[in-house]
Amino acid sequence: MKSDQKTLAGFVEELASKSPVPGGGGAAALVGALGVALGSMVCNLTVGKKKYAEHETRLHEILVEATSLQQALIAMIDEDAEHFLPLSRAYGLPQGTEAEKTKREQVLEQALKDACSVPARIVEVCRKAIDLHAAIVDRGSRLVISDVGCGVQFLKAALICGELNVTVNLAMIKDKVFVQRMRETVHRQVEEGKIVADRVYASVESALA
Amino acid sequence: MKSDQKTLAGFVEELASKSPVPGGGGAAALVGALGVALGSMVCNLTVGKKKYAEHETRLHEILVEATSLQQALIAMIDEDAEHFLPLSRAYGLPQGTEAEKTKREQVLEQALKDACSVPARIVEVCRKAIDLHAAIVDRGSRLVISDVGCGVQFLKAALICGELNVTVNLAMIKDKVFVQRMRETVHRQVEEGKIVADRVYASVESALA
Repeated sequence: MKSDQKTLAGFVEELASKSPVPGGGGAAALVGALGVALGSMVCNLTVGKKKYAEHETRLHEILVEATSLQQALIAMIDEDAEHFLPLSRAYGLPQGTEAEKTKREQVLEQALKDACSVPARIVEVCRKAIDLHAAIVDRGSRLVISDVGCGVQFLKAALICGELNVTVNLAMIKDKVFVQRMRETVHRQVEEGKIVADRVYASVESALA
Repeated sequence: MKSDQKTLAGFVEELASKSPVPGGGGAAALVGALGVALGSMVCNLTVGKKKYAEHETRLHEILVEATSLQQALIAMIDEDAEHFLPLSRAYGLPQGTEAEKTKREQVLEQALKDACSVPARIVEVCRKAIDLHAAIVDRGSRLVISDVGCGVQFLKAALICGELNVTVNLAMIKDKVFVQRMRETVHRQVEEGKIVADRVYASVESALA
């Protein structure tokens, strides 16, 4: 069954179980999706209100982009899990002869690189979603502005967990050029994202003070 | 339908919609439950392993407590939503005469106090769950230690959002004694929880370095 068709109770129980997937990566994708959704909710509760008419066009644009990011994150819950089996199989390959050892190393290297791809995209998508929240916090209805604050906290947590899951895989990859490039790309997005998220959250706190 | 029986896709879409519930409070309860679940997963993947035999008894105790906190958080998704309607009704009460105004103020005051109760409990439960993660990070299998890092980031985000949702309601409550007591209790737990969560996350990073 696709994860997005599982019940909340079922998914949380499966996460808590000793089943290796879903794990932190898939959960981060879901938390990111919940964060994006809160931003969309604020847009949906603002459009059509006379008081915010000047922001109407921009809010509709944001909603289109947010919906696309939300769907991408929901899909990543399963995409992240799909990389687990090849990685687990690669670890289990025989390493009796030199030829087997070389083969195993090659397969494992590729499986590890593949396993980085989804958490790296979680970082990329959450980074974009944090920018959307920065646009929403200046335009959304004051009545639900706290939801932008919650959304951005979830996105920040998902961003950090995305990087953590990239780091775990990078630690075992031998291709130093790949490792350095991936680490730098992801880390830059996380650092930028955290700064913007904290700024958005501070705006929400000011609006409520 | 109870929220825990909704599909992930359905819940996220409902969150993004202009329906006022679920909102940031309910989403925070879910994110907290996902955080607790990751800690339980690490316990479940550690118990029975010879290498960690010395921690077996404590890990089983942690699992019992974590399961109870996880269930409490899942239940709070709906409990938070249940306070919305009385609050919305209170705002809509007539305020034509002095007697009506007084009546409305009383009903509204109580509805606001009630609406604080679930986010305050989200804070309390996430605070406890962060302490469990502090116990897990020293005992859990190194192979899945990154999941403790993800768990604690989700709990920290849920903790902060719990406080934000308390703050929103407190801002409109007239009973200053109630406001001050609630604000102090919640804020202390959030500050303590953030410190412990950051410490747990730093331990995870050290273990992976």
